[in-house]
Amino acid sequence: MAVELPKAAIERIFRQGIGERRLSQDAKDTIYDFVPTMAEYVANAAKSVLDASGKKTLMEEHLKALADVLMVEGVEDYDGELFGRATVRRILKRAGIERASSDAVDLYNKLICRATEELGEKAAEYADEDGRKTVQGEDVEKAITYSMPKGGEL
Amino acid sequence: MAVELPKAAIERIFRQGIGERRLSQDAKDTIYDFVPTMAEYVANAAKSVLDASGKKTLMEEHLKALADVLMVEGVEDYDGELFGRATVRRILKRAGIERASSDAVDLYNKLICRATEELGEKAAEYADEDGRKTVQGEDVEKAITYSMPKGGEL
Repeated sequence: MAVELPKAAIERIFRQGIGERRLSQDAKDTIYDFVPTMAEYVANAAKSVLDASGKKTLMEEHLKALADVLMVEGVEDYDGELFGRATVRRILKRAGIERASSDAVDLYNKLICRATEELGEKAAEYADEDGRKTVQGEDVEKAITYSMPKGGEL
Repeated sequence: MAVELPKAAIERIFRQGIGERRLSQDAKDTIYDFVPTMAEYVANAAKSVLDASGKKTLMEEHLKALADVLMVEGVEDYDGELFGRATVRRILKRAGIERASSDAVDLYNKLICRATEELGEKAAEYADEDGRKTVQGEDVEKAITYSMPKGGEL
């Protein structure tokens, strides 16, 4: 696994997107696997945008640009659960981002949490289309393919 | 249609990705529709990255960051057909990019052309999986969903 994110938090954030539906074990395993990879990909992408700006400190505007490019909606207004700040700082550091404003760290956190919640919303749609009350791994995989560039093969 | 790109060039660039395979009319219609939308989306994304940098002139590094984020490979080494430079300058201008270096314009051009070629490669894979020698619209649609964020609903 790429970076460490607590499974319980990943699951709670994802569940925000699926309402009262149930979640199969293989769906859980899929998100436990994917969300840390996605978080690492977004951190690397933030590093690319930072480098392109010629600056040394990651700022909120770099994350705003990234949310635009990746078309993740409602990032700034996201008010769901977040990952711990120390954890996400570590992920950013591992991507080579030595300095980041607090606002940038928080917005990065919101971006990956909102993207996770959105995966839940999309996976729920696929379950509904199939007439199921339980979100399965295949729904999550379809949601990942739909949401991410290169089908989420990050 | 979002922006104007010549259909004949779109088709030739896409065909670079499909080798000797044939291309159905609905596949052609799908790429005629999608590629200008994608070009507009990439130009808007370039504008976001430019704004985040706090600069006024679009530079090569902004496009390099964008190619990273979107995971389009082989952009700098792309040596296939390109769109006309005046045409792509117009697309960038329509996205609100008033100033761009020649290198940035060329790299934007390479980025959208390489992404188009890559769509062809991916669509060809889907046709092969299905045992067909003709690339159909459904193959192109699957390639778009696979390649682009938000399933290419740009």
